[in-house]
Amino acid sequence: MAGSLDETDMFQPRFDAAGLITAIVTDARDGTLLMVAHMNAEALRLTFETGCAHFWSRSRNSLWKKGETSGDLLEVREVLTDCDQDVLQVKAIVKGHGAACHTGRRSCFYRRVDGNSLVFTGDQPLFDPQAVYRK
Amino acid sequence: MAGSLDETDMFQPRFDAAGLITAIVTDARDGTLLMVAHMNAEALRLTFETGCAHFWSRSRNSLWKKGETSGDLLEVREVLTDCDQDVLQVKAIVKGHGAACHTGRRSCFYRRVDGNSLVFTGDQPLFDPQAVYRK
Repeated sequence: MAGSLDETDMFQPRFDAAGLITAIVTDARDGTLLMVAHMNAEALRLTFETGCAHFWSRSRNSLWKKGETSGDLLEVREVLTDCDQDVLQVKAIVKGHGAACHTGRRSCFYRRVDGNSLVFTGDQPLFDPQAVYRK
Repeated sequence: MAGSLDETDMFQPRFDAAGLITAIVTDARDGTLLMVAHMNAEALRLTFETGCAHFWSRSRNSLWKKGETSGDLLEVREVLTDCDQDVLQVKAIVKGHGAACHTGRRSCFYRRVDGNSLVFTGDQPLFDPQAVYRK
C-alpha cells in the first residue's frame, strides 16, 4: 500500500481506527516543532475552510479550535503529508501571546530527557495559564 | 493528570495501549521535521544505550534500527518530551545519504496538500530505494 501512497499526487489521509490523524504543528517562520495533536475529518475540513487549525480533543471528546480561549490561534500557512499519509505537518503562525502550549510556553517540547529526569530548556511561559484558562 | 506531568522533572513517558509512544524526528542542525515513528520501551532504551534511534515497526511488528539497511542511521543528539509526556522529539543527525525517508528523500514531508491533490515540494531522493532495499 505504501508503494502507491508515497508517490501519488492524490491526498488520501489515513485516519486511524478512531477516525483521527496525527497533526504536527511547526512554526511556519523557522520550522520549530511546536505541538502535536489529532484531527478528525471535520477538524481537517474546518482547518482548511477557516485557515485556523482545528483539532479533535481526545480528553474532552470534542472539536477544538486551538487558541479559542487564550487567543493563541494557529494561522495555517501550509499543510503537508508524510510518505504514507498517516501524519500531517501543519506549518502555522501562532497568534496572540505566541504560545502553542497550554502551559503558556511557545512549544510543548520544553524539557530534555536526561536519564530518568527532565531538564527544563528555559523556554519561559508567555502567558499565565491560571489567569487565561480561569472562567 | 496533565497538571502534574507538565511541570515535573521526572521522565514518565506515557506509552499507549499498544505500548508505544510517538517519536518525532527533527534535524538537530536546523530543526527540519524529518519523520514520525513509534517507540516501545525497548526501542527507547536501545536509542539511549546506542545513541542511534530505534523504533517499533507497526507494519513489520518488530524492533527496527532506523537506517540499518540504507546506512542512513539517526545519530541522536537530544530527546525532548512534550507537556503531557505522550510524544518524544528526537533531535538527530541523519548519517549515510542523509535521507530519513524510505523513499530516499531527506524528509517524509515532501508533499503539500492542495485541496484533494498533493504538490511535490521538489525534495529529490538522495538514494534509489529500489537499489538500496533490494536484497
